[in-house]
Amino acid sequence: MRSFACDYIAGAHPEIIKRLTETNLEVLPGYTEDKYCMSATERIKKACQREDLEIFYLVGGTQTNQIVIDTMLANYEGVVAAKTGHVSIHEAGAIEFSGHKVIEIEGEKGKLSADKVDAYIKAFYNDENHEHMVFPGMVYISFPTEYGTLYSKNEMKEIHEVCKKYNIPLFVDGARLIYGLASYENDLSLKDLCDNCDVFYIGGTKAGTLCGEAVVFTNKNMPKHFLTQVKQHGALLAKGRLLGVQFDTMFTDDLYVNIGKWAIDKAEEVKEIFKRKGYKFLLDSPTNQQFIIMNNEKIKELEKEIGFSFWENYDENNTVVRFATSWSTTEDDIKELEKLI
Amino acid sequence: MRSFACDYIAGAHPEIIKRLTETNLEVLPGYTEDKYCMSATERIKKACQREDLEIFYLVGGTQTNQIVIDTMLANYEGVVAAKTGHVSIHEAGAIEFSGHKVIEIEGEKGKLSADKVDAYIKAFYNDENHEHMVFPGMVYISFPTEYGTLYSKNEMKEIHEVCKKYNIPLFVDGARLIYGLASYENDLSLKDLCDNCDVFYIGGTKAGTLCGEAVVFTNKNMPKHFLTQVKQHGALLAKGRLLGVQFDTMFTDDLYVNIGKWAIDKAEEVKEIFKRKGYKFLLDSPTNQQFIIMNNEKIKELEKEIGFSFWENYDENNTVVRFATSWSTTEDDIKELEKLI
Amino acid sequence: MRSFACDYIAGAHPEIIKRLTETNLEVLPGYTEDKYCMSATERIKKACQREDLEIFYLVGGTQTNQIVIDTMLANYEGVVAAKTGHVSIHEAGAIEFSGHKVIEIEGEKGKLSADKVDAYIKAFYNDENHEHMVFPGMVYISFPTEYGTLYSKNEMKEIHEVCKKYNIPLFVDGARLIYGLASYENDLSLKDLCDNCDVFYIGGTKAGTLCGEAVVFTNKNMPKHFLTQVKQHGALLAKGRLLGVQFDTMFTDDLYVNIGKWAIDKAEEVKEIFKRKGYKFLLDSPTNQQFIIMNNEKIKELEKEIGFSFWENYDENNTVVRFATSWSTTEDDIKELEKLI
Amino acid sequence: MRSFACDYIAGAHPEIIKRLTETNLEVLPGYTEDKYCMSATERIKKACQREDLEIFYLVGGTQTNQIVIDTMLANYEGVVAAKTGHVSIHEAGAIEFSGHKVIEIEGEKGKLSADKVDAYIKAFYNDENHEHMVFPGMVYISFPTEYGTLYSKNEMKEIHEVCKKYNIPLFVDGARLIYGLASYENDLSLKDLCDNCDVFYIGGTKAGTLCGEAVVFTNKNMPKHFLTQVKQHGALLAKGRLLGVQFDTMFTDDLYVNIGKWAIDKAEEVKEIFKRKGYKFLLDSPTNQQFIIMNNEKIKELEKEIGFSFWENYDENNTVVRFATSWSTTEDDIKELEKLI
Repeated sequence: MRSFACDYIAGAHPEIIKRLTETNLEVLPGYTEDKYCMSATERIKKACQREDLEIFYLVGGTQTNQIVIDTMLANYEGVVAAKTGHVSIHEAGAIEFSGHKVIEIEGEKGKLSADKVDAYIKAFYNDENHEHMVFPGMVYISFPTEYGTLYSKNEMKEIHEVCKKYNIPLFVDGARLIYGLASYENDLSLKDLCDNCDVFYIGGTKAGTLCGEAVVFTNKNMPKHFLTQVKQHGALLAKGRLLGVQFDTMFTDDLYVNIGKWAIDKAEEVKEIFKRKGYKFLLDSPTNQQFIIMNNEKIKELEKEIGFSFWENYDENNTVVRFATSWSTTEDDIKELEKLI
Repeated sequence: MRSFACDYIAGAHPEIIKRLTETNLEVLPGYTEDKYCMSATERIKKACQREDLEIFYLVGGTQTNQIVIDTMLANYEGVVAAKTGHVSIHEAGAIEFSGHKVIEIEGEKGKLSADKVDAYIKAFYNDENHEHMVFPGMVYISFPTEYGTLYSKNEMKEIHEVCKKYNIPLFVDGARLIYGLASYENDLSLKDLCDNCDVFYIGGTKAGTLCGEAVVFTNKNMPKHFLTQVKQHGALLAKGRLLGVQFDTMFTDDLYVNIGKWAIDKAEEVKEIFKRKGYKFLLDSPTNQQFIIMNNEKIKELEKEIGFSFWENYDENNTVVRFATSWSTTEDDIKELEKLI
Repeated sequence: MRSFACDYIAGAHPEIIKRLTETNLEVLPGYTEDKYCMSATERIKKACQREDLEIFYLVGGTQTNQIVIDTMLANYEGVVAAKTGHVSIHEAGAIEFSGHKVIEIEGEKGKLSADKVDAYIKAFYNDENHEHMVFPGMVYISFPTEYGTLYSKNEMKEIHEVCKKYNIPLFVDGARLIYGLASYENDLSLKDLCDNCDVFYIGGTKAGTLCGEAVVFTNKNMPKHFLTQVKQHGALLAKGRLLGVQFDTMFTDDLYVNIGKWAIDKAEEVKEIFKRKGYKFLLDSPTNQQFIIMNNEKIKELEKEIGFSFWENYDENNTVVRFATSWSTTEDDIKELEKLI
Repeated sequence: MRSFACDYIAGAHPEIIKRLTETNLEVLPGYTEDKYCMSATERIKKACQREDLEIFYLVGGTQTNQIVIDTMLANYEGVVAAKTGHVSIHEAGAIEFSGHKVIEIEGEKGKLSADKVDAYIKAFYNDENHEHMVFPGMVYISFPTEYGTLYSKNEMKEIHEVCKKYNIPLFVDGARLIYGLASYENDLSLKDLCDNCDVFYIGGTKAGTLCGEAVVFTNKNMPKHFLTQVKQHGALLAKGRLLGVQFDTMFTDDLYVNIGKWAIDKAEEVKEIFKRKGYKFLLDSPTNQQFIIMNNEKIKELEKEIGFSFWENYDENNTVVRFATSWSTTEDDIKELEKLI
């Protein structure tokens, strides 16, 4: 059955699986110290136009969020995030497991605003009892957000300014970064991202690798003995080559750019179809996830024919469902979808 | 300077310090296994009219909240609390330090409602992705709340019913329990409390002891090897007699009742005075903490003469301040206050 | 350069990389709920001759040890292990990170004995102060051990008897399980293992997969909401298919057996060569890791020509080095080694 | 019944309980910010002849060890301690609860030697795999040790030199510090202690207070936002005056010196009596705890008449028992003991 259920329904992009096969018998050192990790790092630096980046390869998104947050925060600090942030609700308490509070503040369509972040932190320091509270030690945003929306370059810069004012890092969760970069509405380059946050990651899992996230530290701020800390969190991959080869391939001949573009083009077609058929959207998403308000009976019928996913309840008769595209979305998938709705 | 800054500005109730002195030279075993802890336990059971209670003595409130929550929850569970709950904001992340999320939901005047708790948990289990979320494993409420308000017997019963429906415990933070019991508006007895929650504590620190909180498990549900777990949290007091003697005294000749009554009477007088002088209140508190909206200039002037505490900002020109009473509040304190405002 | 540095110097066994390629475009659900994980589970049950097993797929060894230990222990329990155990020294504190003490006791050649484990636990319960100590809540052993040695079926049974006496689980770290099973000296079958421990894992990473460890619970004792707890530890793989396909292939047509046999045959050849050339061994290892005492000058010379790894210092002039074999060891590797030493 | 069971069988030294009573009605701020805490701090600085100390007051010993270790170590660091150290075995895993490994090394009669510490750390850094291990981030010793023995000034200096070589702090657990200082064999002053370690604490609980330990940071190295971190560990005492008044009294008119002297004199008398009666000692302790090897039948008989405590099994027929003295030991206690043995 054809599926728009999520952006990780297939294996790896064929070019990646091919490179894994080609390099399979090479003798390589472990723990991400192989030449492919090194090459990937060089290519990412180039794509970012920044020579001074520090990069580490991890396996999954929740793991990456947990490790970045736990290793960059002091014990007494928590991370400020939108209530709808992945770290706030969909990581089974992975952040709290490592001892830190997620300080949830109201966002809009998945986004935090510089003003709200500033207001929260300002009020914190003005509170005479703040020494009895969790210190805001980092700001976490997602690009794109969990609702598919994007920060403009200027919006991100503003949030970063607030962070700099309070001397805390801005962390950008880039699980779906390539779709943000490829969006028709985006005005942020990889270099802009590097220049406007303190740490981010380039998602692999949702972008065409079998697994893997590349964490990028932008200010010579990789935590001390980071490899040891990754090991302590149970996250150091023995055959680091699995990550190295995949990211090296992603950043060869602009594969990550092309995957992003393909998925965004397909998402725009999906959006167009639903619009034409009169469906309403939860919000206007410029990336690869589209959130449609659908009648519950239509859902029951449609889910027999094509894959998509439950997002959240809307009202008694309607549910928000998600249709996602990726490198593996085909033109036939789109045609089939058009027929069915 | 006279002070209404909080309910722990003085040492212990004179009767308590007297008993500590009288018993000082007795040879007693440590770690709350002395005869005074045992006697206190018997007296508390009697005051609660429940023979089957299990009771343990700890030193402070945040410590007690951390230990009760951490030892009663499974790893994958969090505690549902009002956003304004002490565990949510004023414990410097003590709950997260032990690995658990505080699941903050909206309350009203410091109180949770059975409906909102039910709605949250119901939505949790209806969410197809809930296995990727923190399980609600306990409900935490304060009696009185951080805003001085009270749950009626019926309101507490309703919340307990919701907990029973989902098979999770209801935990009542009783840091200021004696003031709730003594309130003119209260309809809940110690026995009612035992019958309508799974664990609570009787606050000592804010009620007239030098330190100490008595945790009461109402359903033969004290966590296994609780003493060891208390030790592991760094909270087992070597000279447990310090807790035993104090609680034994509190529950002799109704001392806790009399302290509660005195403080409530004094709080009503404070309330009356402020009302008479035309002050507005943040809300109507029936317990020993009164929250007054006061002009910032008046505050500057008044704080030179008498003690009270900052609560929260109200608007540009006004601040919410707190006046608290306790066993140590004197009639002269009240007269002086009346003169000054 | 040819290498015996470890058993994870190459990618995946060619059959595995082939199956990953063949299944790459299939649309599959995530989080190890795909049909390949299910099929792998059925095949493992069959190989173990036990229908009642519960199996979960994780990514790496340290991660697996951390999760199994943390989710099976009560808060107040620690894990008993040999001082030389992987969890004791080579996991950067991953067990303590999750809040549990590794209770290190003396082993011999990497092995614990039933007598020593019994003596430790007996002394613990006889100690009048044991409520102030960490409760022994699990016994951890490795099969093969970190020194390549094996427990006989009877030795493992004896340790399991001790565990049953104290009602705590026996956990067998099987990072290199397939080499133990294939050893000429082994008398333990997969079924014997299932019958003589409470939980173990079948290592993939060191046995020919790109990554992956299959945790097997043998007594219907998989911790409650295990998927959620895995997620909380940052260890739930989104594209679970990566684990499913690999283990499904490993357990198809006895691939795991054949890989084990090949590596053991090669290890015996390595051993033979070193013996013939007069080298001394740190101990007699019957599995795929051989520990040779080598003169430091010889090491300097040899390491230019062939890969092997530092193990530990022996004396001023000599070092213990490790030569490991795997599916990727070739007959040419062996010939080259013979020439060089 | 008279008792030598431990040094915390009675309440507080009478002078302390008197001062608590005298100051009881004073209005004071909470959280150790009262004038008695400040005064105690000034007196301790004076007793230490060091103006630059930073001091914080906590409630109990295990709590203090947990907080000092957790707040001074980086995430990836553990604490090096003797196997017999209090943090190693008698704190129910409080150190691991906060995420850190206790790296246990062999001591002698409870003491670590500079050589062994140096050898361990040197070997750690020489190990090619040390990035996969727990970094030694602190050395913990007790003065006196858990076996009543003492480090000479020179021995402590040597250990401190090793710590400085590796740039890690030396932490001295002074739960029974006053008895070490008062020992006939001691050559270390409070100032020497300050100059030869990075952090230590002056035990109150075992020295005559109802509770309380004064943590002293000697190098302007109090961890950032220490009060918040104490709160996060559930250890911040609301009525900090309870600690302030007690330590202020201890350091007034040399009360701590006099208590130490008294207890040591009495311990020497106990030692003398046992020697005279032909008892053997586990080791020669120069402080207030004496470890006697006693026949099990004698123990059964004696424990009906006088209090003492089980220490450890010695052989089939004998047990090591502990007799401790303190400010509350009377001359009549000594006479009674002499009669009974």
